[in-house]
Amino acid sequence: MIPELGVCYYPEHWDEAMWAEDAARMVETGITWVRIAEFAWSRLEPVPGHFTFEWLDKAIGILAGHGLKVVMCTPTATPPRWMIDRYPDMLAVDGAGQPRTFGSRRHYCFSHLGYRAESVRIAQALGERYGRDPRIHAWQIDNEYGCHDTVISYSDHAKTAFQGWCAQRYGDIKTLNTAWGNVFWSIEYTDFDQIALPHLTVTQPNPAHELAFRRFSSDQVTAYNRAQAQALRHATDAPLIHNYMGRILEFDHFDVGADLDIASWDSYPIGFLSDRLDASEAHKAKYLQQGDPDMQAFHHDLYRSVGKGRWWVMEQQPGPVNWAPYNPAPLEGMVRLWTWEAIAHGAEVVSYFRWRQAPFAQEQMHAGLLTPQNIPAPGMTEAAQVAREIAQIGAITQKKADAALVFDYASDWSWTTLPQGADFTYFRLVLEAYKAMRRAGLTVDILPVTARSFDGYDVVLAPGLAQIPDSLTQTDSKVVLGPRTGTVTEELRIPTSDTSPLPQFSESLPPDHKRSVQDAGHVVHWQETWDVADSDQTIISDDAGKAVLFESDGQFRLAAWPDETLWDTILGQLIAAKPTGDLRVRTTQDHIFVINYTNEDQSYEGHKIKGCDLAIFKDGSRIL
Amino acid sequence: MIPELGVCYYPEHWDEAMWAEDAARMVETGITWVRIAEFAWSRLEPVPGHFTFEWLDKAIGILAGHGLKVVMCTPTATPPRWMIDRYPDMLAVDGAGQPRTFGSRRHYCFSHLGYRAESVRIAQALGERYGRDPRIHAWQIDNEYGCHDTVISYSDHAKTAFQGWCAQRYGDIKTLNTAWGNVFWSIEYTDFDQIALPHLTVTQPNPAHELAFRRFSSDQVTAYNRAQAQALRHATDAPLIHNYMGRILEFDHFDVGADLDIASWDSYPIGFLSDRLDASEAHKAKYLQQGDPDMQAFHHDLYRSVGKGRWWVMEQQPGPVNWAPYNPAPLEGMVRLWTWEAIAHGAEVVSYFRWRQAPFAQEQMHAGLLTPQNIPAPGMTEAAQVAREIAQIGAITQKKADAALVFDYASDWSWTTLPQGADFTYFRLVLEAYKAMRRAGLTVDILPVTARSFDGYDVVLAPGLAQIPDSLTQTDSKVVLGPRTGTVTEELRIPTSDTSPLPQFSESLPPDHKRSVQDAGHVVHWQETWDVADSDQTIISDDAGKAVLFESDGQFRLAAWPDETLWDTILGQLIAAKPTGDLRVRTTQDHIFVINYTNEDQSYEGHKIKGCDLAIFKDGSRIL
Amino acid sequence: MIPELGVCYYPEHWDEAMWAEDAARMVETGITWVRIAEFAWSRLEPVPGHFTFEWLDKAIGILAGHGLKVVMCTPTATPPRWMIDRYPDMLAVDGAGQPRTFGSRRHYCFSHLGYRAESVRIAQALGERYGRDPRIHAWQIDNEYGCHDTVISYSDHAKTAFQGWCAQRYGDIKTLNTAWGNVFWSIEYTDFDQIALPHLTVTQPNPAHELAFRRFSSDQVTAYNRAQAQALRHATDAPLIHNYMGRILEFDHFDVGADLDIASWDSYPIGFLSDRLDASEAHKAKYLQQGDPDMQAFHHDLYRSVGKGRWWVMEQQPGPVNWAPYNPAPLEGMVRLWTWEAIAHGAEVVSYFRWRQAPFAQEQMHAGLLTPQNIPAPGMTEAAQVAREIAQIGAITQKKADAALVFDYASDWSWTTLPQGADFTYFRLVLEAYKAMRRAGLTVDILPVTARSFDGYDVVLAPGLAQIPDSLTQTDSKVVLGPRTGTVTEELRIPTSDTSPLPQFSESLPPDHKRSVQDAGHVVHWQETWDVADSDQTIISDDAGKAVLFESDGQFRLAAWPDETLWDTILGQLIAAKPTGDLRVRTTQDHIFVINYTNEDQSYEGHKIKGCDLAIFKDGSRIL
Repeated sequence: MIPELGVCYYPEHWDEAMWAEDAARMVETGITWVRIAEFAWSRLEPVPGHFTFEWLDKAIGILAGHGLKVVMCTPTATPPRWMIDRYPDMLAVDGAGQPRTFGSRRHYCFSHLGYRAESVRIAQALGERYGRDPRIHAWQIDNEYGCHDTVISYSDHAKTAFQGWCAQRYGDIKTLNTAWGNVFWSIEYTDFDQIALPHLTVTQPNPAHELAFRRFSSDQVTAYNRAQAQALRHATDAPLIHNYMGRILEFDHFDVGADLDIASWDSYPIGFLSDRLDASEAHKAKYLQQGDPDMQAFHHDLYRSVGKGRWWVMEQQPGPVNWAPYNPAPLEGMVRLWTWEAIAHGAEVVSYFRWRQAPFAQEQMHAGLLTPQNIPAPGMTEAAQVAREIAQIGAITQKKADAALVFDYASDWSWTTLPQGADFTYFRLVLEAYKAMRRAGLTVDILPVTARSFDGYDVVLAPGLAQIPDSLTQTDSKVVLGPRTGTVTEELRIPTSDTSPLPQFSESLPPDHKRSVQDAGHVVHWQETWDVADSDQTIISDDAGKAVLFESDGQFRLAAWPDETLWDTILGQLIAAKPTGDLRVRTTQDHIFVINYTNEDQSYEGHKIKGCDLAIFKDGSRIL
Repeated sequence: MIPELGVCYYPEHWDEAMWAEDAARMVETGITWVRIAEFAWSRLEPVPGHFTFEWLDKAIGILAGHGLKVVMCTPTATPPRWMIDRYPDMLAVDGAGQPRTFGSRRHYCFSHLGYRAESVRIAQALGERYGRDPRIHAWQIDNEYGCHDTVISYSDHAKTAFQGWCAQRYGDIKTLNTAWGNVFWSIEYTDFDQIALPHLTVTQPNPAHELAFRRFSSDQVTAYNRAQAQALRHATDAPLIHNYMGRILEFDHFDVGADLDIASWDSYPIGFLSDRLDASEAHKAKYLQQGDPDMQAFHHDLYRSVGKGRWWVMEQQPGPVNWAPYNPAPLEGMVRLWTWEAIAHGAEVVSYFRWRQAPFAQEQMHAGLLTPQNIPAPGMTEAAQVAREIAQIGAITQKKADAALVFDYASDWSWTTLPQGADFTYFRLVLEAYKAMRRAGLTVDILPVTARSFDGYDVVLAPGLAQIPDSLTQTDSKVVLGPRTGTVTEELRIPTSDTSPLPQFSESLPPDHKRSVQDAGHVVHWQETWDVADSDQTIISDDAGKAVLFESDGQFRLAAWPDETLWDTILGQLIAAKPTGDLRVRTTQDHIFVINYTNEDQSYEGHKIKGCDLAIFKDGSRIL
Repeated sequence: MIPELGVCYYPEHWDEAMWAEDAARMVETGITWVRIAEFAWSRLEPVPGHFTFEWLDKAIGILAGHGLKVVMCTPTATPPRWMIDRYPDMLAVDGAGQPRTFGSRRHYCFSHLGYRAESVRIAQALGERYGRDPRIHAWQIDNEYGCHDTVISYSDHAKTAFQGWCAQRYGDIKTLNTAWGNVFWSIEYTDFDQIALPHLTVTQPNPAHELAFRRFSSDQVTAYNRAQAQALRHATDAPLIHNYMGRILEFDHFDVGADLDIASWDSYPIGFLSDRLDASEAHKAKYLQQGDPDMQAFHHDLYRSVGKGRWWVMEQQPGPVNWAPYNPAPLEGMVRLWTWEAIAHGAEVVSYFRWRQAPFAQEQMHAGLLTPQNIPAPGMTEAAQVAREIAQIGAITQKKADAALVFDYASDWSWTTLPQGADFTYFRLVLEAYKAMRRAGLTVDILPVTARSFDGYDVVLAPGLAQIPDSLTQTDSKVVLGPRTGTVTEELRIPTSDTSPLPQFSESLPPDHKRSVQDAGHVVHWQETWDVADSDQTIISDDAGKAVLFESDGQFRLAAWPDETLWDTILGQLIAAKPTGDLRVRTTQDHIFVINYTNEDQSYEGHKIKGCDLAIFKDGSRIL
């Protein structure tokens, strides 16, 4: 597959007179895809039922006329003002009981059936007009589900829907009481309609109640998306996409992805570094203008899985953004490096956000490929360079990775509900495992818990996995379970059946408390105390003699949260690591990509790789 | 008195088939008391008016049949769901005006008379059935008043009750205006029904208003408790207990205790260390898995006073808990050490929370003596050891302490209302004084401001006491007043009568600002400038020449908040200190208990005391 | 002009029997002005329409009888309780939608026309009675507009008024949509009555919407003040004053000042240091008991401008205050120093707050010149000393300053709305520029953006100025623009016309990220990248070669936020600096004032100036 470049474009933000020149410059830059109409509902249907597609027809005509392939969007992330008059109760409600009002975006509750019907209606209207239009090569439904904490809503609509969801899941109220352990504090219900949403309680609500609500909330996103997907399936044969945002965990992306053809995501490495990464200040300072060296790759591998192999970067950071606490510019070369890294992980398209920086509204300080004055910004040059290099390199073919990592949204909900330690964060645990695998030179597949097989990998890591699927205990791969893996049921209880091996007890540790593991690193955050059987083999123990890694019945149990050094020790015990230092290596069928996120020269097998640069090898030779 | 051990048990959480074995194992462990029915309202009265005592009868039968003495509880901390249908307005309201809803526990406003009547009704129903039952040896009313910030409620019921309380206290509205100084910002009222609750104001409300509301809120807890106590007095001759939680200051425990026979409290040393202690990070790291060496003793001495000599630990931490920010396990030996320390301070019973760890609901990560899999947890072994040691040691008799410390809830309310410095915390001030007394080798009685006499002590400390009672100025003990002692009236005004000696001015100091007192320590947090009369004797001055400790009319005035070193200097000036280093010493009639909270060996008069261990001496010999 | 001293007095707080002695002691101290009636509404009109002026007549009689000049206040900052019965909806509403209730002060919404009418009514009543009374020498309207965040209100009255304000500003809704760029996220309105206030949105509202609301909110304060000013103009010829609080930025003081005769403000140096200053901990420790050495001077220069040359300090800190997080006492000499510094900057009157410390209500821990026991506090002695020194020094005449600094409230609103970096604070930026000018020995005039001319200065700094007025580009002074100056329009958009020079891109930098500028300091917080033309002259570049200061078309462009060292370098390039070290120098027509805020001796041209002391020079000789 030969990768392509794209761009996000908002014709409605600009004078029509500019559209043709814009299209010509896109093509000149080497761009082949253009995404449009994402937030344009107030221009497509300014008055309820009165559609004004003419301007969009014209824009499509100009863009396609220049040879660009169009991605059409349903504009449902931005319901227009009149929608609020029609459905004043469509707004989501926050944890304090306050409606989240009109005036920005994503102002809807996923449980509001009236708005869901309106969303289907606008999708149908667009599908009817453009579904068979050959200039439209793909469709995006809505945008960034869950951004701005919009999955969870405490509205009355959500409450009623949750009560129905409970009735369906548990059948009768006694079953629910037993499943949740409601006897604990006399919280027993006698009817489903007594169940409130789990907020505003005196102290924490029953965690089983909260987990059920999180599971329900995710299901509502899936159902909302499916309604639009079904409407579009009738209208078009083009592939359907949802564009996800990085580190959004409140809904199950695998569930949403099951109804779609391609997964795309938004890669903002510098914004993520300061806003969404758990890391030391020293680490953040080192990568301030580059982004974390694993955060993007992790998401690339995740969305390759969510998209069942087909995935894009829909929004690639092209310069400084506006939304992080601090917004420095990327170092020279980083826009190119990020683009190539996505390609190395299998992106079909890398699309920059956005064509020209808007001079108005919320994102006016968010860079585009052009400045508001229509002058090329630094990212433009690098995008054009990548386009030329793609032409030089040609097709790239992915292959099965060396190792696998299990990622499970419901596990995040479980530990968010019941963290037991203030900094027990599932995403951090999984990302740190991923980083260790990358430092060991492994390529990684990220798999859902529902994967049919985990066979054929050097090693499979499953840290913090709430429940252990049978497929994971029956694989030919080396499997490492823990910490905390398999210690709760789906109803967020401690398993009491004999079949579940469990630690004697678990401890959460404050940030400065580290427990030494000989000279091989430290236990941090979390430690379990297991009664290791005589038949088991302890591989690593801490200074106090507690087992940190042991083998039991052919599986490996990790009984603690390792720091970086201890992770490296552990992987060194399990596989033949090829440490990469500060470099990152991604291997495809025919190519090796070596990526340098640091700002200093690095050496790879005798080759010098400059700071913020990469190398591509094929058949043993450096071809870039 | 020979101390005994107990345990908290929730038969309704477990299959009836397990009860008999549980009872047998309790007895085997050396436990003699068992507390039940604490949160069982939904099982005792699943439908309003329809009682189902049969299961409880059976549980009592099995427990008592094994020789266990039962503590029966009124389950009013957990009103069942149907109660909310009956009284939707019974919920407490938080400072933002939001009702605190059903779904956890303690979801009631102390001012709601409907719920108060229901509480009396269930207490009467239990009293009727079990009040004369010889198997029931004590009664607990409700549980942990004030836990989860539940004393203060801004409900309409609280508002109406507060207006009535004001009318009763002040008689007419002009008296109230004058008492509060409402002329200050034109806040004068013309009728009691104009008085709102002191929240949601533009800037701080009148502190006199806020203090009155805090005093009222405490009175409501007392009245609520008294209603249940009166109901039970008619039904039983067994002693009545309330079980208090550590460092709850929003109601006057002495007031509640006056209506009861025994005070019990919940000792969670490791949870308290991270969650409720003002201390340096270094101190918290040193005692991470042991708890602070004075926090428990302080509460033991406090509740001995609240219980007029009779007190228990009702819930003793047996392993890791679930509710602190981080929850490490106790070091080996600490469960035994905590138990013995409570006994040294006079506990009649030390009762572990809980028998078996629940595998469900909010506290599923809170250790019990047994794991959810019914396997003994480490705490079980230590409890059994204590039981054997008690049998060996025999009776222990308390005696009057060397020194006294005055503790006054209303003083906390005064300084919380009018702190003047962001970190002026009454509890911290008092606890630091207590620590200094313990480092000096003193045993301590904690006394309320209403104590009839403060005579017969080597020294009496009264730091931060809002008003000075006459009994404190007329004692034969050395009395140390200050800092801040006697500087406000009961209406939270500066006294202007000639009889009140006052500093010229007071200063609050930011955390990093320390003022040197020669080589004897530093002033921190707070300093007063006094016009020391020629007839007074200045004992300690700071480097700038200001009096820090001086004697006036036979009383000692402490004009600053001392750091640890300065406290030691001050006590060294006043009494013959016997410094104990990191050890803590408690002397009873015949025994000396020496307790080592550190994790290293310590030496006491030539005896080695291991880390996390204690020694007991009798007649000059070490007997443990 | 010979400066005078004043005091704030609340006769209604004290027994009438004390008034005469108070007046006599004021005169004895050297005080000539007394401000009264500020918060006395409940005593002036205890029942609606029923006035009780008799006590006030008597107080005026006694004060004036002793020769004191009276400042009469309208008491509208403290509406009495009955006003809330009349207008329950007059309360302001906070950002969470919660009304801000009665019980402290400033509990009104500036948009409530009923309360505005009541304010005019009480002003008229006072004016009628005292407007022509020769004992009343000045009038203060209300007090401290904006204190306790009271400018912004999200009430329904504000919403309706804002919709009307928008209709007036934009004429038709399409113009508004275009101005704000509402197409961006389909936020387009079809009617003005659809416009909500910009809060409670899912993510940030349109910044143009928020800026318009901030501009409107400021206009409401101006209109409210003007209504009272007009009422009083009919009644009196005495000068009208509003008394501003330090670092209140939510309304345009120049706009309010335009309707008045004298600007006064409240100088609380130690409170401001800990509560309202962005500075390092080391700096705050150094000046803990003195206050920041430039914060007061900045406000003096600002209010000289707001008052069109006539200004007072209405409330001068006399000892410890009560409202900062920590409240240490001023070092000896500081009350005198602060008073003299105000005089050096041109204060007509410096008035202490307050005469006697109140023993009750919110401010009972706020020092006065007398203690609550009626004993002179340390500030009293220093005030009396200043009075004697004034008599010795005689008249002081101001002159035009060396340099000017542009200060613009709307710029603060712009960057508060659109900070782009979490610590981009306009006030901090401007104050740091002011500090640099003072360190360089310059006297400074602070000018509004509407100043007719910026001519005649050595240098004019305009950091962070949102738009550049023509007068600033056409002056004969050296002008320094930037950082960020002129980068947004009045509608908070990026200018896209060719006439606006703009950086290629801008970066916000996290606090620990500093970019070296050779050996001349560092760039912090913010850096712009400009395409410097060949015809421009780069004066200072950073280590990476980026222009930090360059000249273009005769103007200087500062492309970064300088640290202290870099500011000194920059000013050193532009003017002949006379560095003053830790001293501060203020030059008037005939005098040089040299002020030492440190606690150590300093040297000035061979003269020793003690810590917390000042020197005054005239004709080359030290006269104080």
